[in-house]
Amino acid sequence: MKTFYYPQREQWGEILARPTQDNGDIACTCEKIFAQVRADGDTAVRHFTKKYDRVDITDLRVNEEEFAMAEEAVSEELKNAIRLAAANIEAFHRAQISEPVEWSDGRGLRCRQETRPIESVGLYVPGGTAPLFSTVLMLAIPARLAGCREIVLCTPPAADGSINPAILWTARLCDVERVYKAGGIQAVAAMTFGTQSIPAVCKIFGPGNRYVTAAKQLATAHGVAIDIPAGPSEVMVVADRSAIPAFVAADLLSQAEHSADSQVVLVTWTPEILPAVEAETERQLALLPRREMAEGVLRHSRTIVVRDRAEALSVVNEYAPEHLIISAEDYDDFADGVLNAGSVFLGNYSPESVGDYAAGTNHTLPTAGWARAYSGVNMDAFVKKITFQELTREGLERLGAAVVTMAENEQLTAHANAVAIRLGEYGTE
Amino acid sequence: MKTFYYPQREQWGEILARPTQDNGDIACTCEKIFAQVRADGDTAVRHFTKKYDRVDITDLRVNEEEFAMAEEAVSEELKNAIRLAAANIEAFHRAQISEPVEWSDGRGLRCRQETRPIESVGLYVPGGTAPLFSTVLMLAIPARLAGCREIVLCTPPAADGSINPAILWTARLCDVERVYKAGGIQAVAAMTFGTQSIPAVCKIFGPGNRYVTAAKQLATAHGVAIDIPAGPSEVMVVADRSAIPAFVAADLLSQAEHSADSQVVLVTWTPEILPAVEAETERQLALLPRREMAEGVLRHSRTIVVRDRAEALSVVNEYAPEHLIISAEDYDDFADGVLNAGSVFLGNYSPESVGDYAAGTNHTLPTAGWARAYSGVNMDAFVKKITFQELTREGLERLGAAVVTMAENEQLTAHANAVAIRLGEYGTE
Repeated sequence: MKTFYYPQREQWGEILARPTQDNGDIACTCEKIFAQVRADGDTAVRHFTKKYDRVDITDLRVNEEEFAMAEEAVSEELKNAIRLAAANIEAFHRAQISEPVEWSDGRGLRCRQETRPIESVGLYVPGGTAPLFSTVLMLAIPARLAGCREIVLCTPPAADGSINPAILWTARLCDVERVYKAGGIQAVAAMTFGTQSIPAVCKIFGPGNRYVTAAKQLATAHGVAIDIPAGPSEVMVVADRSAIPAFVAADLLSQAEHSADSQVVLVTWTPEILPAVEAETERQLALLPRREMAEGVLRHSRTIVVRDRAEALSVVNEYAPEHLIISAEDYDDFADGVLNAGSVFLGNYSPESVGDYAAGTNHTLPTAGWARAYSGVNMDAFVKKITFQELTREGLERLGAAVVTMAENEQLTAHANAVAIRLGEYGTE
Repeated sequence: MKTFYYPQREQWGEILARPTQDNGDIACTCEKIFAQVRADGDTAVRHFTKKYDRVDITDLRVNEEEFAMAEEAVSEELKNAIRLAAANIEAFHRAQISEPVEWSDGRGLRCRQETRPIESVGLYVPGGTAPLFSTVLMLAIPARLAGCREIVLCTPPAADGSINPAILWTARLCDVERVYKAGGIQAVAAMTFGTQSIPAVCKIFGPGNRYVTAAKQLATAHGVAIDIPAGPSEVMVVADRSAIPAFVAADLLSQAEHSADSQVVLVTWTPEILPAVEAETERQLALLPRREMAEGVLRHSRTIVVRDRAEALSVVNEYAPEHLIISAEDYDDFADGVLNAGSVFLGNYSPESVGDYAAGTNHTLPTAGWARAYSGVNMDAFVKKITFQELTREGLERLGAAVVTMAENEQLTAHANAVAIRLGEYGTE
């Protein structure tokens, strides 16, 4: 890890910069695949599945037999682990369900805000080397709680045409019935336009590689909403002398094994901990199966030594990390000052991996600095908040003159008339 | 208005279709202006203001003297109207402020969700023929309530270089100090990259024409969030025999005067009201200053006669109107079934114009069917919800085995290690 000692504020931007990606070529590929899926439906999805996933799929939808095989294939140990995680995720997301907001001026005007589920949602679950059944939990549980009528799940098939049994078992646990063997750009296109098998949806959720991310972006141009712009995963660890070097090292490594473009940043105002953190990182790294990838990530990751806690907080808010681990004294006090972050892990016994799987918080979080403006996925992401207003005649009498004045000043005469005619101030017969 | 009697469900899509817009040419213009504003800052903003608004602006920021002149220029009547509207908007948005969500498993695991303001927001307020001071209220009041540190407002100058005094007075009323004379694509570009005068922001809000909308879309590619995709305004009126034809006609016309591409749809299961609604529309239309525009809008607007209330509700949810007026018996019952809409107006005395200005609800709403997945602007739009998790050693002992099992099954060994090392199950010395 490259270490920066007491950098000037003007240097922070450069030190904290994420690598930029040029996706120009991908955008073009997306356009082509979207056009073909829109025109040819299932046939096009099958064609691209053959081309990119190298497998012939006859029936895109996972059938009852495959679900039954998954039930057999998943170990009881994993089932119990998933059940515990599901219970926590359900409990914490249920706690987020908001009550209707009601307000009245007490004089004939009543306003309220109510939530309604998004009717149909599409969940994208990456396949490939790591079968992300945890993502099924993170997206399907809140979708169910919100009352989304239709939940569609797309995930790429393995070379033998199968879907990882843990993904299928988890989907079934979460009452997701419609699971499709489709991945990449073609899956996103299918959920955008609908095909013979795969229904079109109102909003698409889920992580994915650069292709999936670009496809989700393109889906928005066709009237489909998406959860958040996705980018490589990242962690910032804030550690002081109360941190335990072996734990800090384990947290840095758990981010570093994610993918080759993962971001890892360590911030401290007690540089005396650094030699022990580095030694532990070396030692633990040697034991990892994904050692090569983690090594590459660590090579371009950064340690920033700052003057004090206050400056560390400024660095956090400047970077806006997806995951923030605070292994420092008075972490609650520090957390109060955090303005920009996706999810925050407090103290020495709250590793990121607990939030990734089972703490109950969502692991679909804003990366690349989007935490400055975006929340992670939460119950809000599966509903709309609709406002309702009701005036009595008396309410309109009280408010009407103001509306007429404002409308006339905005030169919107008919807006004024809609009030005046109700108050008998505009020529009805 | 073109009337469709009892159309088959398969025809709804076509009848309810919004006109599509091809913005290919605009995207290119946006790219050019963005590049120039990024490179040349204020100089570029001034250049494009001269080109498009036909005025030379020396100082982009509105100064104290201009605010003082606005204080003089706005009538006491309009000030009082704006004050009343502001009070309602503040009260209803304050009611939306959410409490932190806390949850614990009672065994050493605590999760919470807290809101944090978006630090800097940019408000775009259109100028042109209608000075939309009401938009200042709708965006600046919730931004202030949310605690956004920096609020930047851009609005295009008139031909004499001035800003409409009602916009300035309203900005001051809402404690917005930074008002800039910049409109169109160059204003959005300035708030995206920042210039010598205009600060870069994290999120851009506000309505605008096709150019502004395309510019906001491009801003997202540069890491700036936006409120909602914007399109032409629209109203759907559901009316039965309890509706008052003169009121229905006034509501249709108040939408029709907005802009040439406004959408107006009337739905009823009591077609006997239609002759009276049409006669009233003709009569009121003749009195409007914007008669020509309204006539054009009405020409391509639609009346749909359906079999019954249930079918009317299906049409509403299929169309997902920005504004929905329910002038029908048992409107509360009907409203309960509304799944897709921006804002809903209940009964005979709740015209859309009340919500546009002063009811307290927000008038920045999803158009073009986006109400299927998006909420209108509300307090959520100005904050992020951040999750925090804290485990004690005991909490991690309880949850740890599940996390390790799940991580290992996703082939993320280091994720498992981050737990195991804390529980002494992985080689620390």
